[in-house]
Amino acid sequence: MKILVLNCGSSSAKYQLFDMTDESVLAKGLVERIGMSDAILTHRPTGKEQYRAVQPLFEHTAAIKVISDALTHPKHGVISRIEEIEAVGHRVVHGGEKFTAATLVDEEVKDAITEYFDLAPLHNPAHLKGILAVEATLPNVPQVTVFDTAFHATIPRYAYLYALPYDLYQRYKVRRYGFHGTSHKFVANRAAALMQKDIASLKIITCHLGNGASIAAIDGGKSVETSMGFTPLEGLIMGTRCGDIDPAIIPFLMGKEELTIREVDAMLNKHSGLVGITGMSSDMRDIVKGIESGDDRAKLAMEMYVHRIRKYIGAYTVAMNGLDALVFTAGVGENNPAMLEQICQNLTCLGAVFDQERNAVRGGEHEISAAESKIRIWVIPTDEELMIARDTMQLVRSA
Amino acid sequence: MKILVLNCGSSSAKYQLFDMTDESVLAKGLVERIGMSDAILTHRPTGKEQYRAVQPLFEHTAAIKVISDALTHPKHGVISRIEEIEAVGHRVVHGGEKFTAATLVDEEVKDAITEYFDLAPLHNPAHLKGILAVEATLPNVPQVTVFDTAFHATIPRYAYLYALPYDLYQRYKVRRYGFHGTSHKFVANRAAALMQKDIASLKIITCHLGNGASIAAIDGGKSVETSMGFTPLEGLIMGTRCGDIDPAIIPFLMGKEELTIREVDAMLNKHSGLVGITGMSSDMRDIVKGIESGDDRAKLAMEMYVHRIRKYIGAYTVAMNGLDALVFTAGVGENNPAMLEQICQNLTCLGAVFDQERNAVRGGEHEISAAESKIRIWVIPTDEELMIARDTMQLVRSA
Repeated sequence: MKILVLNCGSSSAKYQLFDMTDESVLAKGLVERIGMSDAILTHRPTGKEQYRAVQPLFEHTAAIKVISDALTHPKHGVISRIEEIEAVGHRVVHGGEKFTAATLVDEEVKDAITEYFDLAPLHNPAHLKGILAVEATLPNVPQVTVFDTAFHATIPRYAYLYALPYDLYQRYKVRRYGFHGTSHKFVANRAAALMQKDIASLKIITCHLGNGASIAAIDGGKSVETSMGFTPLEGLIMGTRCGDIDPAIIPFLMGKEELTIREVDAMLNKHSGLVGITGMSSDMRDIVKGIESGDDRAKLAMEMYVHRIRKYIGAYTVAMNGLDALVFTAGVGENNPAMLEQICQNLTCLGAVFDQERNAVRGGEHEISAAESKIRIWVIPTDEELMIARDTMQLVRSA
Repeated sequence: MKILVLNCGSSSAKYQLFDMTDESVLAKGLVERIGMSDAILTHRPTGKEQYRAVQPLFEHTAAIKVISDALTHPKHGVISRIEEIEAVGHRVVHGGEKFTAATLVDEEVKDAITEYFDLAPLHNPAHLKGILAVEATLPNVPQVTVFDTAFHATIPRYAYLYALPYDLYQRYKVRRYGFHGTSHKFVANRAAALMQKDIASLKIITCHLGNGASIAAIDGGKSVETSMGFTPLEGLIMGTRCGDIDPAIIPFLMGKEELTIREVDAMLNKHSGLVGITGMSSDMRDIVKGIESGDDRAKLAMEMYVHRIRKYIGAYTVAMNGLDALVFTAGVGENNPAMLEQICQNLTCLGAVFDQERNAVRGGEHEISAAESKIRIWVIPTDEELMIARDTMQLVRSA
């Protein structure tokens, strides 16, 4: 079974085509600048030369057509006929309270994604465009939506509600949703497999540390807590997002600086986090370079970043009353052994023993805890696209 | 040495007179409705009958005069001459970054308290009024300010800064300050004394759970983290305050409900927390009654309250990489054994063993962990006034 995985943004569409017989990637690529006269396709067929094309693409349907042409192209293509694609899986950021698992697209699903525009104004409208574009381009192919929020649907009520006036939950569905669910699920399951244990018997904390970052507590395979909340702003320090702050800072600053709602939103989401602290960069690679060259604020940013993660590891260990495995993933989590050392070397109070030599390994799945550690600590590259492909296949097969 | 401890609010003045030879309370009391024509004095001399008087009191100087008259009154008084009071200790909420310890009042101190009006607009102006009123009424008595923030001055930079644009710290001193410092300090020192250990060798978490609530991590006698932040809004769920939320909820709700800055501030500080969740009461006693009568939202509020505290216990244990003692104090912390059980019974991952029988004890200082527990858990009534009197005496003596 060949499955196309799509992640549609407002002006972009990322794709990967999987051959599910061996879960291999046949091709991957990206269309950028949708809506412009110089939209760019970058197509990477496995084992063939990369292909790049610039052309006007005014909406998502045109972009999907370009992707399907690239996939079936005589020279750059990897399949001979578009009908070989048996299903399309879409990453959808927000499934609200309705979607607790991957779902076959029908009218009701499209309506619900629309209903949640408000909760994910930057993402859900683009995802719907992608779904409609596939309907127009590949009318007979089943589509599946895999929600970033779905894996967190098992978080108990006492952990997903905020201590705000209760009617705000009833009227606007203000609650913790959590994001990165597909990634947390993928790496938690990989950790269980690597440990040769049933995930139902394990308490796992997964740290997805990319430009966005979140951490999840997974008890018996189910998410029971996560650091992102109503939006992806809450929790850890991120590239440009502040994560946790005293909420009273917002009205204070709005008064002092006469900020509008949009301005305060931009400040918290785009000008805070690592770039806010350092005034220099949101990219952890630049922070690491800054530390090496003696930049005090870069050092501070790293200390804050590590401290925040450590606090969440403790919080979630107590929330589950135990911890068997701790997993780091995504760009920052997979590529910063010095940072992992700072996070993990002082977890001895939980029974974790960090191993410096194992931590020196770069790339791939590897353990960074010592043989005698009560808690096993792993670096596991995430693969959200593969997880979406798997969920899509499972759903299409059982439908 | 006799020391008067004052806690002046915008329309109130609480007082306690200590005889520091045995730290006994000679009298305590409260003036309410300062600024009104029917201000009320309630005076409680130890071993004598309570005395109540209603009269017009238009400013704090008049209130301090009424207190000094009550203390020296032939019938209700406890001292014969006001000159017996050798020092006055003031509770001051906000000492900004300047005050890291109790301080003798001089012009500079008064200027600094004024400088921090902005950071504690409800408290610092009232404290200054109290100091000026004492100057006018007892002109030769040394005054000492004991700051709620001072004990937290040892929190390291990576824990007190927020991941916001750094210039907001430089321009407005937006950072974590922490509050309830006098209480955290008092109970942490009591715990060390009860354990017959030097506090310098202990890692302690103190939970001050009153109508306001905060938790502190105290390593070697020094505060290294605390849950209240720039203001007392952050952290735990409180009677009417929300504690931690996704900051993005604020601009979202301001847009939806067209809230002003003042309205959003009132919502987060006065209509959230326990009263927000239950829609019924901010008082934990009502929540407990609600649970007994099967109120689902009361049950929910308790679960949320407990979950939040448990997360912080875990966070701070990892932040210190260890925990020797956990202390509960203040109204809610001292009087809710069922709640303490929910918080503590599942801390076995940290090596804590909860003791139900010991937890059945009501009142006074008592241990609620089992003999074999690696972490000793205590209920210790707080006494901020005594702590202020001690700090005041120490400073006046050494001056």
